[in-house]
Amino acid sequence: INKYNIAVLPGDGIGPEVIHETKKVLDAAAQTYVFQLQYHEALIGAIAIDETNDPLPQDTLAKCKASDAVLFGAIGDPKYDNDPSAKIRPEQGLLALRKALGLYANVRPVKAYQKLIDKSPLKESIIQGTDMVIYRELISGIYFGDKSTSADGKSAVDICSYYQEEIECIARLAFKAARQRNNKVTLIDKANVLETSRLWRKVVKTIAMEFPEVELDFIFVDNAAMQLILNPKQFDVILTENMFGDIISDEASVIGGSIGLLPSASVGDESALFEPIHGSYPQAKGLGIANPIASILSGAMMLEHLGEHDAAEAIQDAVLHCINAGVLTSDLDKTSKFITSDIGDYICNHI
Amino acid sequence: INKYNIAVLPGDGIGPEVIHETKKVLDAAAQTYVFQLQYHEALIGAIAIDETNDPLPQDTLAKCKASDAVLFGAIGDPKYDNDPSAKIRPEQGLLALRKALGLYANVRPVKAYQKLIDKSPLKESIIQGTDMVIYRELISGIYFGDKSTSADGKSAVDICSYYQEEIECIARLAFKAARQRNNKVTLIDKANVLETSRLWRKVVKTIAMEFPEVELDFIFVDNAAMQLILNPKQFDVILTENMFGDIISDEASVIGGSIGLLPSASVGDESALFEPIHGSYPQAKGLGIANPIASILSGAMMLEHLGEHDAAEAIQDAVLHCINAGVLTSDLDKTSKFITSDIGDYICNHI
Ligand SMILES: CC(C)[C@H](C(=O)O)[C@@H](O)C(=O)O
Ligand SMILES: CC(C)[C@H](C(=O)O)[C@@H](O)C(=O)O
Repeated sequence: INKYNIAVLPGDGIGPEVIHETKKVLDAAAQTYVFQLQYHEALIGAIAIDETNDPLPQDTLAKCKASDAVLFGAIGDPKYDNDPSAKIRPEQGLLALRKALGLYANVRPVKAYQKLIDKSPLKESIIQGTDMVIYRELISGIYFGDKSTSADGKSAVDICSYYQEEIECIARLAFKAARQRNNKVTLIDKANVLETSRLWRKVVKTIAMEFPEVELDFIFVDNAAMQLILNPKQFDVILTENMFGDIISDEASVIGGSIGLLPSASVGDESALFEPIHGSYPQAKGLGIANPIASILSGAMMLEHLGEHDAAEAIQDAVLHCINAGVLTSDLDKTSKFITSDIGDYICNHI
Repeated sequence: INKYNIAVLPGDGIGPEVIHETKKVLDAAAQTYVFQLQYHEALIGAIAIDETNDPLPQDTLAKCKASDAVLFGAIGDPKYDNDPSAKIRPEQGLLALRKALGLYANVRPVKAYQKLIDKSPLKESIIQGTDMVIYRELISGIYFGDKSTSADGKSAVDICSYYQEEIECIARLAFKAARQRNNKVTLIDKANVLETSRLWRKVVKTIAMEFPEVELDFIFVDNAAMQLILNPKQFDVILTENMFGDIISDEASVIGGSIGLLPSASVGDESALFEPIHGSYPQAKGLGIANPIASILSGAMMLEHLGEHDAAEAIQDAVLHCINAGVLTSDLDKTSKFITSDIGDYICNHI
């Protein structure tokens, strides 16, 4: 019987609530498909600052490194956002963790669920059949470049830099994914203005030669922000740098009708972390209205990654069942009487 | 009788076609409202490179500096986009011009036209009543920071920097605009990651104290990319830095149903330039399918800026008339039999 060590980082806001449901569902899957999950809980984010004064305590990092995979909730607390002078921020915990684990690729599948198609702000004809996956570079670019404020506090600098190898790693993953899908990669950049974008274009073109069956095209990020809404079906695999990926993948999340549905995997050569793409949604904390599906589907991606394909599929099917049965939280159904744990229970019962 | 010197920079692709219609309309307005427009045409962009090897020839800059306003078409040619080693690019012409004229604020109004509401990829209930204006900083940030590629070609850097004064200038404009509108400014940034964003937050908060009647709120750029589609009505005046503004304002352009409708003004303390927000659309060049309305409305913004309010309003009314009459190019009506010049003629006849 296979046994997996999972580092569990519930984090802030609704993080603990959605992680609670996810563990329930993972345990149900483990029982049915006969494997074991051992959870090792640890602190990260605002709660870690509150308790240890460090958004990524050593103990947390150690547990993550010792694990087969990391299950992550959410991070962020408004009390830090509006204080430009705060030296320690919750988000630093997540950024430092991504870096320390070498999680260079954030993978976000975006799909339109037929049953929820009318929940989207976009018209049915626009989103029907949308099925794309976004590969966002996650541990370089302007997020991780040097940053500073001048001594007089009157100017600030952020540096965006990229190395060829950083681009190569994630580009290969994107092309491999395309080969399993519809053989198309679209690079989003701003090559008409940025030097780093021109490097991306050059390197990605070279990698493309290793994958002759995959078509490669290019689109400027401003145009991409439009095309994503005008005609999302044109995309198969999107590849892009860190900051553009942050913006574009959140924008893409509205296609599915709720950001509460979308999972993500952050992968490196040695570790992998699974998290819903939504944030900590502090206003909803403790109200039982958080949608746990994004986190549960992240759990399914984790099982897939661990090689438990049948269990992963069973969770995905149960989620579909749940959606089709209209067992939805209030983000998807204003008149809903279901709370967070009802969704988890329903999915457990359908595995 | 008032006389204005207008530098006219048709540029690339469909630029010359839409500028041609705009001049027709401006002339009609000048005749009716009794003022004079003297045009001084000049080269910029790919066509300037082709003819002079310089995307912004000295003569062009001189004409712009000597003018009361600049009317700009479009810039860009695909033959330069896919050549990462090209040393001279059309876009450099526009960027250098913005910088040389000190055009620090790009102003983009976004409105939903009732008559065109079904052209939008977004649902009517989402966009109805949308009326916002975006203030994008235009001559600093990562666009204008130092950029370089390492000698071995294996890494590249772009620097994003901001000075307090740069933020103050555009912030004041945005707050003044809000005072004429619904008294709300939303700053889009990524203050949880970027040092420059934290400077923006700090400086904008200080400026806000000069405008106690205006409400200020903050939103992270990734969330903004979602909110813009989920609920565009929540925005009144959006204020943001250069790169975020590029992405967000193009995304916002889909609300109106076609990017072919949206004008913009780029203003500084001494000069102002007016351009449609769409690009050069090279595939459409010479086909008569370009929608001239964005350029014509940019012309109206120019007249407004010059103090010819009645003429500006007359153009805006004529455009509304044109839209309501269904006199539309094929971007807005697939079965349309109207070409670019038909739109210009119709608008002229309704002034
Ligand atoms: C919390 C924040 C630092 C993070 C990011 O921007 O990477 C989040 O928005 C995400 O996309 O995972
Ligand atoms: C052509 C390009 C350099 C320009 C920009 O990004 O500023 C354009 O996209 C715009 O938004 O005016």
